[in-house]
Amino acid sequence: MKTSIQQAIAQTVKTIRETNPLAGSITNSVTINFVANAQLASGGSAAMVYLPDEGETLVAAGGSLYINVGTLLPIYEETLPATVKALKESGKPWVLDPVAVGIGSMRTKLLQLFKEYKPTIIRGNASEVIALAGLWGLSGGSEVSRVRGVDSSDEVSAAKNAAVALAAFTGGAVAVSGEVDLICDAKRIAFSSGGSHFMGKITGAGCALGGVMAVYASCTEDPFVAALGASAAFNIAGSRADWRAEGPGSYQVYFLDELYKSTPEDIANNPFELEEI
Amino acid sequence: MKTSIQQAIAQTVKTIRETNPLAGSITNSVTINFVANAQLASGGSAAMVYLPDEGETLVAAGGSLYINVGTLLPIYEETLPATVKALKESGKPWVLDPVAVGIGSMRTKLLQLFKEYKPTIIRGNASEVIALAGLWGLSGGSEVSRVRGVDSSDEVSAAKNAAVALAAFTGGAVAVSGEVDLICDAKRIAFSSGGSHFMGKITGAGCALGGVMAVYASCTEDPFVAALGASAAFNIAGSRADWRAEGPGSYQVYFLDELYKSTPEDIANNPFELEEI
Amino acid sequence: MKTSIQQAIAQTVKTIRETNPLAGSITNSVTINFVANAQLASGGSAAMVYLPDEGETLVAAGGSLYINVGTLLPIYEETLPATVKALKESGKPWVLDPVAVGIGSMRTKLLQLFKEYKPTIIRGNASEVIALAGLWGLSGGSEVSRVRGVDSSDEVSAAKNAAVALAAFTGGAVAVSGEVDLICDAKRIAFSSGGSHFMGKITGAGCALGGVMAVYASCTEDPFVAALGASAAFNIAGSRADWRAEGPGSYQVYFLDELYKSTPEDIANNPFELEEI
Repeated sequence: MKTSIQQAIAQTVKTIRETNPLAGSITNSVTINFVANAQLASGGSAAMVYLPDEGETLVAAGGSLYINVGTLLPIYEETLPATVKALKESGKPWVLDPVAVGIGSMRTKLLQLFKEYKPTIIRGNASEVIALAGLWGLSGGSEVSRVRGVDSSDEVSAAKNAAVALAAFTGGAVAVSGEVDLICDAKRIAFSSGGSHFMGKITGAGCALGGVMAVYASCTEDPFVAALGASAAFNIAGSRADWRAEGPGSYQVYFLDELYKSTPEDIANNPFELEEI
Repeated sequence: MKTSIQQAIAQTVKTIRETNPLAGSITNSVTINFVANAQLASGGSAAMVYLPDEGETLVAAGGSLYINVGTLLPIYEETLPATVKALKESGKPWVLDPVAVGIGSMRTKLLQLFKEYKPTIIRGNASEVIALAGLWGLSGGSEVSRVRGVDSSDEVSAAKNAAVALAAFTGGAVAVSGEVDLICDAKRIAFSSGGSHFMGKITGAGCALGGVMAVYASCTEDPFVAALGASAAFNIAGSRADWRAEGPGSYQVYFLDELYKSTPEDIANNPFELEEI
Repeated sequence: MKTSIQQAIAQTVKTIRETNPLAGSITNSVTINFVANAQLASGGSAAMVYLPDEGETLVAAGGSLYINVGTLLPIYEETLPATVKALKESGKPWVLDPVAVGIGSMRTKLLQLFKEYKPTIIRGNASEVIALAGLWGLSGGSEVSRVRGVDSSDEVSAAKNAAVALAAFTGGAVAVSGEVDLICDAKRIAFSSGGSHFMGKITGAGCALGGVMAVYASCTEDPFVAALGASAAFNIAGSRADWRAEGPGSYQVYFLDELYKSTPEDIANNPFELEEI
């Protein structure tokens, strides 16, 4: 089974490099540039919007969408519902990044709404995944969010039950980012290794990963392959950047270079462990 | 004639380096930081705003303005009309970047409005220039936009007629960015060479070029010289950065370095071909 | 007295590195990424928001806050008053960056309002500090702002009286950024040396410094120590980055690296002169 997953990842990366797929984003302003550059370095194309009818148009124009609720603006109260509705009607895959779930009333309301729209991939840190499962009333979730700003207060392993419950509910995949990344759907759990401690010393590593997952999701029908493949791409590029970096400034530069230089085989062969549920 | 254009470019760069002119921007949030850094590296000064009366103030405070409609916000419905009105009254030059023309109703409405305000320089990729000419009912334009997100689906040469028609209408200059850049006014067409394939692998190369064109436009009365000079600056810096870059991360770093290090002579001597219309 | 200040700076940096304090920000979109990355490289944690109730939540969640009025959005008319009210009630320290004071009616209104909320630290360039003192009717201020976009038209020394008057009024600290930085409270003035001419060739050096001052302010009760410590951290990292940089692109990269690599002793020992008032 592991080999067929690796083959599917390699094939997805090849398709991305050949077709330069557009994955639009509605995302936070802190890391929006890094998300776009990571999508481009990965072989995809990027476009970002704020307005309701532009969200709908972006769904129609691209192969997938990335929604990150990091820095909400008032107009998002209209834009995000219109966009997820368009996503549902189109059947196109999308990635939800429930950044800082629990902070503010609009964020809570929107993340509640997204439950019925069942994101193809949910990506977050352990605290966010636990809190989202709690918000959606799923097992493994917690009523009391331990989200601290954009950081996680929990270990990846603590989010295992919440991640599996979310994946079982959506029918898609869930990725929990941490020292070792956990990626699961309703049947399988993978633990992807690599990366760097510098990932926590730069802003936007998680957002960029979510954006790149959207690129991957546009080129494979298996959300688990998309989520694991993008995680593997970040882990191999992150490891290679770590060897050369002197600090978080040079780390970012090398990371984008390595994301660009990595081959389909590099990405498919990044080590992961697999468990069946 | 080529020599006098080169002399005018060199003189413009010298004036920029000596006077550090302020070129304000109302621009998208994806690449806003890169625009500002490119303007600073080129010798100019940068300031960005969102609110209507701040747009007006920025017109008064600076030597020129850069308007990029990449990521529209609701307030732009007031800000952009107020700002172009102030530009017209001041007579100051401005650069329009019609990013993703065709996406969304506000974008269409604003770009329609800009027709009567006649931007000093229009900068876009081939698809955007063709679509804008179409929106304005000019020859060479197309009713059906082939704009795909922020990317071009057309070659630069395909936009030649649209570019010349736009320049004839505005009385200013038009720049079409691509592998070889086309820059024209109503009488002349230049083809500027250089740059790098990495320009398409980073986000914001076009936006930054538009912002730097505004810096140039504040220091010469000839929009063609401003548009060609800024394109030459990007092409020489882009070529030099390409020699050293390993990927899109290091490319961006070297590109800003080379933009900063290039001399007036480097920029004036970047190769271009000239045609009279 | 100088030694005890240096010891307090070293202790503050140690506490930051050990506790990774969260300093939230409401800041401009041009440099928001650089602010977050500088806060992370310094040992802190970052989170940015736009909405009123999220500003309040960020005050509760973090140890301090950074408010930068660079690019105001319409919602800031509600967000910033709600946030400074929450700050006052919490007693937590905050840093005000009065970017481009004098431009636009909302900026003027908000900066007027902030007077009664007495920011713990005010950081700006000379022209901004003089203009803010003028706006608040304090000595050393000027009715007529000489702020040009985001740049200063005045020397640091020209802002000395305004800075001391602001510090005497707030009971906190004021930092005037320039070739030599002036940092004062009501009793002491320090002049911190170092940095690089490249600081003026990149966007956001001042904003990032303000954001890092908020990180420092969360780990010491003395605003003067926080403002001087963060300035020293920027000056030592800036000097070291300058030795290696070829231009503003590589300067930014090395600067973040050096900010990350600098030890508490490096920062405490960065040269400064001290005057008692």
